[in-house]
Amino acid sequence: MPYFDAASSAPLHPVARQALQASLDEGWADPARLHREGRRAGLLLDAAREAAAEAVGCRPDELVFTPSGTHAVHAGMSGVLAGRRRVGLGVTVSAVEHSSVLHAAAAHEAATGGAVTEVPVDRFGAVMPDTYADALREDTALACLQSANHEVGTEQPVAEVAEVCRSRGVPLLVDAAQSLGWGPVEGAWSLLTASAHKWGGPAGVGLLAVRKGVRFAPRGPADERESGRSPGFQNIPAIVAAAASLRAVRAEAAAEAVRLRALVDRIRARVPELVPDVEVVGHPERRLPHLVTFSCLYVDGEALLHELDRADFSVSSGSSCTSSTLTPSHVLRAMGVLSEGNVRISLPSGTPEAEVDRFLEVLPGVVSGVREKLGAPAGSGGGGAVEPDAAAGETAGPVADPARTAGPADVRASLVVDALGRRCPIPVIELAKVFGEVPVGGTVTVLSDDEAARLDIPAWCGMRGQEYVGEQPADHGVAYVVRRVS
Amino acid sequence: MPYFDAASSAPLHPVARQALQASLDEGWADPARLHREGRRAGLLLDAAREAAAEAVGCRPDELVFTPSGTHAVHAGMSGVLAGRRRVGLGVTVSAVEHSSVLHAAAAHEAATGGAVTEVPVDRFGAVMPDTYADALREDTALACLQSANHEVGTEQPVAEVAEVCRSRGVPLLVDAAQSLGWGPVEGAWSLLTASAHKWGGPAGVGLLAVRKGVRFAPRGPADERESGRSPGFQNIPAIVAAAASLRAVRAEAAAEAVRLRALVDRIRARVPELVPDVEVVGHPERRLPHLVTFSCLYVDGEALLHELDRADFSVSSGSSCTSSTLTPSHVLRAMGVLSEGNVRISLPSGTPEAEVDRFLEVLPGVVSGVREKLGAPAGSGGGGAVEPDAAAGETAGPVADPARTAGPADVRASLVVDALGRRCPIPVIELAKVFGEVPVGGTVTVLSDDEAARLDIPAWCGMRGQEYVGEQPADHGVAYVVRRVS
Repeated sequence: MPYFDAASSAPLHPVARQALQASLDEGWADPARLHREGRRAGLLLDAAREAAAEAVGCRPDELVFTPSGTHAVHAGMSGVLAGRRRVGLGVTVSAVEHSSVLHAAAAHEAATGGAVTEVPVDRFGAVMPDTYADALREDTALACLQSANHEVGTEQPVAEVAEVCRSRGVPLLVDAAQSLGWGPVEGAWSLLTASAHKWGGPAGVGLLAVRKGVRFAPRGPADERESGRSPGFQNIPAIVAAAASLRAVRAEAAAEAVRLRALVDRIRARVPELVPDVEVVGHPERRLPHLVTFSCLYVDGEALLHELDRADFSVSSGSSCTSSTLTPSHVLRAMGVLSEGNVRISLPSGTPEAEVDRFLEVLPGVVSGVREKLGAPAGSGGGGAVEPDAAAGETAGPVADPARTAGPADVRASLVVDALGRRCPIPVIELAKVFGEVPVGGTVTVLSDDEAARLDIPAWCGMRGQEYVGEQPADHGVAYVVRRVS
Repeated sequence: MPYFDAASSAPLHPVARQALQASLDEGWADPARLHREGRRAGLLLDAAREAAAEAVGCRPDELVFTPSGTHAVHAGMSGVLAGRRRVGLGVTVSAVEHSSVLHAAAAHEAATGGAVTEVPVDRFGAVMPDTYADALREDTALACLQSANHEVGTEQPVAEVAEVCRSRGVPLLVDAAQSLGWGPVEGAWSLLTASAHKWGGPAGVGLLAVRKGVRFAPRGPADERESGRSPGFQNIPAIVAAAASLRAVRAEAAAEAVRLRALVDRIRARVPELVPDVEVVGHPERRLPHLVTFSCLYVDGEALLHELDRADFSVSSGSSCTSSTLTPSHVLRAMGVLSEGNVRISLPSGTPEAEVDRFLEVLPGVVSGVREKLGAPAGSGGGGAVEPDAAAGETAGPVADPARTAGPADVRASLVVDALGRRCPIPVIELAKVFGEVPVGGTVTVLSDDEAARLDIPAWCGMRGQEYVGEQPADHGVAYVVRRVS
């Protein structure tokens, strides 16, 4: 049963399982106690800290264990922000950080008024070191940058940004959740966070490294454990399993990275050949070895996941219909790429080549099946009839002159599609259906209250070589204007 | 190897081990994902929540899993305090709560200025419902009371205090960490917290129940998991093991409680017969079935733990010398009982009777050995010579007239013992050594800078039937004055 969602959580590595089971007998006692059971637990904890610190590339006394990667991020960010309060309250983050970073920044802003500066990314999802440098201000107390993106796999220029931060005296926190299993994070970072279940370790273990010299003041109620940086009774069997499996995956990482990168390259190359109207997203070279993401025009992401699941493939998606908030992934938004029909494939270590080949066999039929059900336009052109509820006359009234340059003579050259109340990918499908009906130079205006339209209509224009004119507020939604240029 | 420290952490219950191992294969995926692995993990999580909620006595949607009991306490307290900010910022706690409660209250006070009111306890460690009621004020947003004390085993009148709180409209948080394995908490509590590794579940799992209707506003960065009340990726195998083992220990609880209570009664009765100068602390009847605590006069707690460990018994202690802060346990202080030579015995389920009997055989020799090494007075009287550095003349000067009623004629009837710089139990040993040298009506003043003396000198007076006059500030420490009355 092919599981292609390692970036959410990887299956337990055999070494993690062995270490967990072996330490259940020795690791259950309180390591703060003086008795032999406590001392034994303490020895296991010390050994795990040494092993994990070596893999991270820090001193053991710089590393604490937390109950999750999220806890590591929260504790790391709040500790630096409290410790450097005199410098200022500003936080700089990339726009494509994991939600744990963005939510911690937002909570900090809400509680203290400290401004959050988001550094934009390019179409591949990467920040530019110069842009990052420009986002650092006098009052910036903390900068955050992931080592690699969790949704599209793009590696960030961490070493360059760390150098920029160092020269400005701003500590850089690197969220290495997606990359630590593949290798240490290079560069002069100040804090690093990670999560064991992403590399095949057990749930319940995060890592927080804080370099000596970083001003750090733990927040929240006092607790002596883990240098006062992570409260609560330590889960030593899980910590032992996390450290052991990190060493194990690192030993296999170089060879496995080459193998998986070849499989991912195959997916990146073949999917656009096999499936029409697909956009592969993320950087073509500077990326994680095991992760690839693409989006399919005219496809409902949830239906696609469901059909792939029926075909035994487990993947995830950043489409709006697969999120509880019905908004597309903030990563795809920041990149400005198509979000509908989004599929993230992240291969666990050991994924057989045959599973990838079978996926490539299955995918075209699955996508075309979903498109058919939705009545999507076939092929790569527009075509199809205007749906009854998308007639121009009824809704043209409330919409302001969309193209601004269109005079009265052009009225017949424009159409309005009312997709209010319809969810992704319907607004884009409706646009495509009527688009052939306006002459070159004419416009189609799509009325939509679906957040995904803001991303997907411009993306459609890019894929189709048509002109995206812009958006305007409209009754109950937004009017998106597209001009036919060919 | 007898392990008598279940109250710190219990050995893993066989059912917990089985459930953990069984769910490692099914519980590693992200339960928020739509694919089959995610759905399977979600089903395990749902089933564990139902089982745990039934054992707690709440609805499944009132219960969330946290990474530890400490996290449950922190999240529960901060959530109520944020949710009821309009009512006020006051917190009422018993003086003998677990440090996680007291530290969270202190952090709240430091951050918001909300006053913490500590409810005193009697000599058994129990609060009185009336005293608790008096401690509730107009601005009290939250009340906290443990179900039973973790150091001395005394059960608190939770149902009565819950009724008081209900009538005053104040939510009561019950820390049930020590008792939940023995049975549900009775009464109209509003929040309940617990910790799986205390009942033989794995580390990494706490419970937080919040009754419907309690105003609750989670603090910290937003996170969708666990109803927004506990961030981070859930540790599902550990959660499954926690729920399964809670059911298992509950099934055995009634019979095991009777059996362990008999063993604890034996310890309570025999220790004072076998070892001179011992004070058994905690309530004689209203107490946990498996926990008993006593203190031994003239004994260094760390040396005692070390010698018991050499004799294969693992226990813990609230003595000052066994804490990193070199202060006696706040529980013993609040109770006003002897803290030196303190031993807490907490029997895990299944403890064989023979282990308890062997402990009773070993203990007298261990205690007398430690006392001998310290040069403690033998038997239950005073006796022994004054040590050179405890001569009266040198240090009588800076001490104010200790008994206030003593005139010039009484000067020869008083002695001063300089125990500055000496740690527990030396100040009490020095007091005992010289005590026979003053006539009835005379006083001994002990100069000490050891925090334990404040507790142990009055306790010595109580055990010896002598009069504790009081304390006064002195150069570099405190002067404790004792009058000989027999």
